[in-house]
Amino acid sequence: MHVIIAYDIGVERLHRVYLVMKQYLNWIQNSAFEGDLSLGQLEELRIKVAKVIDEETDSIVVFLVSNPEWIDRKVWGRERGLTESII
Amino acid sequence: MHVIIAYDIGVERLHRVYLVMKQYLNWIQNSAFEGDLSLGQLEELRIKVAKVIDEETDSIVVFLVSNPEWIDRKVWGRERGLTESII
Repeated sequence: MHVIIAYDIGVERLHRVYLVMKQYLNWIQNSAFEGDLSLGQLEELRIKVAKVIDEETDSIVVFLVSNPEWIDRKVWGRERGLTESII
Repeated sequence: MHVIIAYDIGVERLHRVYLVMKQYLNWIQNSAFEGDLSLGQLEELRIKVAKVIDEETDSIVVFLVSNPEWIDRKVWGRERGLTESII
């Protein structure tokens, strides 16, 4: 299962969410992660994230695509996320 | 063609990029847009975005999925992007 996650999180929780996401996915952008997870791993991630976020204000959008080959990925501008992190 | 875009843009260019993206896609997060575009529209968007961004520092990741039915979308926390905008 290929997973793309984009999130808006209060700045005071951003680093904790980043650390949880990083256990499961690759950082690709300031507020986006990507990777391959099983449904079990995704559920683990969801539970860990739920402990960290404020569900009233923070928002995380999760896109799931069963087959990674169905996704074409392009970068406009600079490729990030492989060797750098802003946090 | 279903399109998901996540971007890291210098703050001084953020609003201009937002305005260009908004012509083509739906705002879903602080730095993410989503929508359905033809390849022609996507190319139009790429050209408009290229005029606004600094390609040395700004980064935009574009995910393309031919069939929207191949994508499952979940929200953890608060659903955003329908009635609000931070900019």
